Amino acid sequence: MNADDKKAVLRMIPYGIYVLTADADGTLAASTVNWVTQSAFAPPLVVVGIKADSGTYKTVKAAQAFALNMLGKDQKALAFTFFRPADVSDGKLSGQSFRKGTTGAPVLIDVLGAVECRLTSIVEQGDHHIVVGEVVEAHLIKPPSGRPDAAILEMKDLGDNVFYGG
Amino acid sequence: MNADDKKAVLRMIPYGIYVLTADADGTLAASTVNWVTQSAFAPPLVVVGIKADSGTYKTVKAAQAFALNMLGKDQKALAFTFFRPADVSDGKLSGQSFRKGTTGAPVLIDVLGAVECRLTSIVEQGDHHIVVGEVVEAHLIKPPSGRPDAAILEMKDLGDNVFYGG
Repeated sequence: MNADDKKAVLRMIPYGIYVLTADADGTLAASTVNWVTQSAFAPPLVVVGIKADSGTYKTVKAAQAFALNMLGKDQKALAFTFFRPADVSDGKLSGQSFRKGTTGAPVLIDVLGAVECRLTSIVEQGDHHIVVGEVVEAHLIKPPSGRPDAAILEMKDLGDNVFYGG
Repeated sequence: MNADDKKAVLRMIPYGIYVLTADADGTLAASTVNWVTQSAFAPPLVVVGIKADSGTYKTVKAAQAFALNMLGKDQKALAFTFFRPADVSDGKLSGQSFRKGTTGAPVLIDVLGAVECRLTSIVEQGDHHIVVGEVVEAHLIKPPSGRPDAAILEMKDLGDNVFYGG
């Protein structure tokens, strides 16, 4: 397999930008992620690829729940904020207000919306593991005026040479 | 959980459009899918949500391999063609030329590119199952001039009210 071709073809997959959050008995985690897809309607399932050696992965596993916070087109700075380890102070997550969701996962206040998920399966394969969650709560914070998938911040909005995949 | 909010938030996830193909001992399958994400770099893994009661799912499981063919911005008609069951005649798949890839999966000729995967895991959960494949071959057919993820056909290109998710 040609490595450059593999990279170019895999980078054809378009991605939205999300802040994944979790709370394991007071240990909070928040990371920008993009490897996300829905995987079933009934029950509603989502899949997230999470770096297996990350603190966020450890926290999600311990919490057995997580939230996916959907960033808006104007929230590029927030995406970069959560590329770095989250800092919790003054009741904020890296400066962002949040509230505890029904699963216990932190739900950011200033985002388009969020889904909360109960962890149902993990496929421990590769440098990132496949985390499957059942959507048990949804927060529509800023209802989109057009298509919901036109409102979300996308990987291609982060910069001409910004990719995570390939 | 409010069902409308759940739908609106899940529909924020942006999707590309792919034709998933497989060949189980001469039984060919080809279906348009959109629930796709990469899930690891090493090894390169992709995840696809496939309708559990579909012929394509059965064929992928039997073949233990599949290809994801990436459609270009101008291939909307092709996306709709493969929403219907594939027809094999005159050595074509619903009128589309293809060749047998290294995994045996049909690789469409007139697409942006394709990855071929060996099936590594299935999570049998929900009305669609989570199929995990290791990318073992890549075909870059039309190298993009800009970002690869700007060249692919997206769900939002199919029509103002076309969604698969929520």
